[in-house]
Amino acid sequence: MRFALDRESGTPLYQQIEAYFRAGILSGSFLPEARLPASRQLARDLGVNRMTVETAYANLESDGLVYFKVGSGTYVLPPPVLALPVKDNAQALFPAWQQTLQLPLSFSDETLAAPAGADLIRFAVGSGDPGLFPLDAMRKILQTVMRRDGVSALGYGDLYGYAPLRATISHVLANQGIQARPENILITSGSQQAIALAAQLLLREGETVLVESPTYGGALDLFRKLRLRVVGVPVDGNGMQVDGLDALFEQVRPRLIYTMPNFHNPSGVCLSNQRRHELIALAGRHNIPILEDDYVGDLRYDGHAQPALKALDPGGQVIYVSTFSKMLMPGLRTGFLVAEGPVFENLAQGKRATDLAASNLIQRAVEGYVTVGRYQAHLRRSCQLYKSRRDAMLAALRRYLPRDVQFIASRGGLFLWLQLPDGLTAEQLLPIAREQGVDFASGPGFFPNRADGANFLRLNFAAFHREQINEGVRRLGQAIGQVRK
Amino acid sequence: MRFALDRESGTPLYQQIEAYFRAGILSGSFLPEARLPASRQLARDLGVNRMTVETAYANLESDGLVYFKVGSGTYVLPPPVLALPVKDNAQALFPAWQQTLQLPLSFSDETLAAPAGADLIRFAVGSGDPGLFPLDAMRKILQTVMRRDGVSALGYGDLYGYAPLRATISHVLANQGIQARPENILITSGSQQAIALAAQLLLREGETVLVESPTYGGALDLFRKLRLRVVGVPVDGNGMQVDGLDALFEQVRPRLIYTMPNFHNPSGVCLSNQRRHELIALAGRHNIPILEDDYVGDLRYDGHAQPALKALDPGGQVIYVSTFSKMLMPGLRTGFLVAEGPVFENLAQGKRATDLAASNLIQRAVEGYVTVGRYQAHLRRSCQLYKSRRDAMLAALRRYLPRDVQFIASRGGLFLWLQLPDGLTAEQLLPIAREQGVDFASGPGFFPNRADGANFLRLNFAAFHREQINEGVRRLGQAIGQVRK
Repeated sequence: MRFALDRESGTPLYQQIEAYFRAGILSGSFLPEARLPASRQLARDLGVNRMTVETAYANLESDGLVYFKVGSGTYVLPPPVLALPVKDNAQALFPAWQQTLQLPLSFSDETLAAPAGADLIRFAVGSGDPGLFPLDAMRKILQTVMRRDGVSALGYGDLYGYAPLRATISHVLANQGIQARPENILITSGSQQAIALAAQLLLREGETVLVESPTYGGALDLFRKLRLRVVGVPVDGNGMQVDGLDALFEQVRPRLIYTMPNFHNPSGVCLSNQRRHELIALAGRHNIPILEDDYVGDLRYDGHAQPALKALDPGGQVIYVSTFSKMLMPGLRTGFLVAEGPVFENLAQGKRATDLAASNLIQRAVEGYVTVGRYQAHLRRSCQLYKSRRDAMLAALRRYLPRDVQFIASRGGLFLWLQLPDGLTAEQLLPIAREQGVDFASGPGFFPNRADGANFLRLNFAAFHREQINEGVRRLGQAIGQVRK
Repeated sequence: MRFALDRESGTPLYQQIEAYFRAGILSGSFLPEARLPASRQLARDLGVNRMTVETAYANLESDGLVYFKVGSGTYVLPPPVLALPVKDNAQALFPAWQQTLQLPLSFSDETLAAPAGADLIRFAVGSGDPGLFPLDAMRKILQTVMRRDGVSALGYGDLYGYAPLRATISHVLANQGIQARPENILITSGSQQAIALAAQLLLREGETVLVESPTYGGALDLFRKLRLRVVGVPVDGNGMQVDGLDALFEQVRPRLIYTMPNFHNPSGVCLSNQRRHELIALAGRHNIPILEDDYVGDLRYDGHAQPALKALDPGGQVIYVSTFSKMLMPGLRTGFLVAEGPVFENLAQGKRATDLAASNLIQRAVEGYVTVGRYQAHLRRSCQLYKSRRDAMLAALRRYLPRDVQFIASRGGLFLWLQLPDGLTAEQLLPIAREQGVDFASGPGFFPNRADGANFLRLNFAAFHREQINEGVRRLGQAIGQVRK
């Protein structure tokens, strides 16, 4: 053990040692029944006489903070009932450089910080149903990986990502119409990190990123934190409105287009085939990279699949980003990006500078799971179940909500997107809804211009049983009725 | 399956489908024996007539790319010997925005990219001995966590990090003289991410960060990538030279001081007690935050422990960063930071924007391992072993290297730092050393001004057996002899 002694101060060393343990015990840093270091060892560590340490321990004992066990050592007693106040963050006077730090309103706070309540139906969540996740299979695969790979499962591993996982992703993507070579795939800590790497590489402070309006709140948080200018393009039932883009490009000179062409978050719409071709052509003409976020591209319940923008890429124009978070489990933190050309190596180096590499063990486990064909089966099962839940939510919305609340039936993904009538805002509704035992993701967090989202809210249908969906939407209907009274 | 069909082009749809699979099979995206989608399903996915798909498949078969199995489906044949050339990254013409991307020389490339060779002794590595890691214990703990926590082990979890792990770290730190409340601890993806978060928050492009010269190459990479101005302060046997700092602060106005006071990487020296107090006082007076990187603080083999800068922090001045990568395994990617005041919440939000959260499963496993007291035992074992290896390397250096190669005996950590005599550079030596079967981390990658490092090199003693150490240093001695001939 080491801690600071001040040999120049007037305070005797034994008192300094005593004070250190006293503060630690009272603040809870040293737990009851924790053993203090042997006096001989501590004396050596601190470079003091052993008697000095023993005097300090004796004083702590007489104050009822520790006790001696003969032949064993010195142990912490449970804290006295009247513990001393611990230094409080809020009251401390922090250095001047800390006073200038400002904290922007964060999407995740708004979306996730519901008050704890046993019965709250949390339609605000952003992931699929964890109950679907094949825990047992994953547990066994983890065991297999640990036995098979030993310490190599826990080293840094390949800085681009575990090579067999990159090959596996290449095959998964081939099934989705994207021909990506493993050398062009970089494993990231979720798709969030992939978006962060691209934005950090391609834009500098004050430059413009073009997004759909609305868009994923976590991306907005990120872009704002990087002090970028965020310009929104309106979305309709066919996705991003591509019509005015030519003029807009000239006007705002974006350095990046961030888009979710499939089951767009939060609206659930898909970009039409024609617009996909137009967007690619326009971006090429204006020399603007496209960041395609395909976070749930495979969770389709109706209609025909559209080609990914990446599949239309004439070469090096599109950075494609996806993740296993929505399909499997978010805690795996395993996403990836696909890019060709100099940008790929730049992104890989950015990854290294940010956190060196992704967890090697988890990558190996994901690879094991996907390779044995369980992934495709899991996906089919998820689609079947989520489709029925979407239908249940649509039925409940028609049953319990007033006619003037609008919504589109998403053809895939996790969410339904609702528009409240004029005069009724999500902000008004949320506290009442929570009282009724249901929550939702409020519109403003999804819009570059927050005010545009006042009337909107997002509901997750994928993570809930039909009964919960029915009950949750019923409560939402009640809450709307109550606000209108 | 979905991929792009162009209905406006002159090419018939069946030929487009055929071309898609042909390219995929020849490039290896579709593996031999992979099953193509059933024609009925693919026709539905693509919105075409089933006959169109079957025509495409028949053409692929007559070209020897696939075969039919009656009652089963269409399968990919092994690729023909003369595969078509695949689109090559180097030759493709990438968009203009890609041409402007420049790739800086990266520390990790220089340090880690040794040519593969069975017999190469890789003194360049940056971690401890993976053979020490208690694999079986960790495997069992992973099982326990999966069984005990189920899906909650694989969800996003607490965005600040798994709460019991933060409490455990608080106790570990109390033993190192740092009293940190769990609420002031943020779990990160290794210490690299903690450094990245602090730098991104506290500095803007062009602003100045002060580092030791030499310093950790991964931090230099990061700071350069963020386009910061990096100013180095010389290091001697007592660590960073604090004397001239007052004037230097006035001159370059740094926004952050990045320092490794314990077993500094690469030099292995410790900042003296007196300089610790001076540095804290100076930084406080000039209102400059300190980022303390305590990457191997507990791996001490001789001498007395010095207090961490964090332990001397008058309040909110020091951001403390550490990791389990060096003590346990780097692949765990589990580091943490400690900070008080507004900066803490800002760093936490930065973490969220970058990658949402650290792997929940791994955090739970680390917590399980540390809590049951195995961590302290592991640390004692590591110190004992590494000390004997350091001594073995010192003996070998005295035996095999010419007298004019200088080095300091580090009192802890993983590395020894060598200075070659004038006229002999690490750059000259490295290729010859590799031919002899040994490598090292070259000096220039550790210096803000690369030229300052021409005569230096870093050797890792911790990851090698005594015989390897002896043999490796012997080879190094031979290489030096050879260069001098």
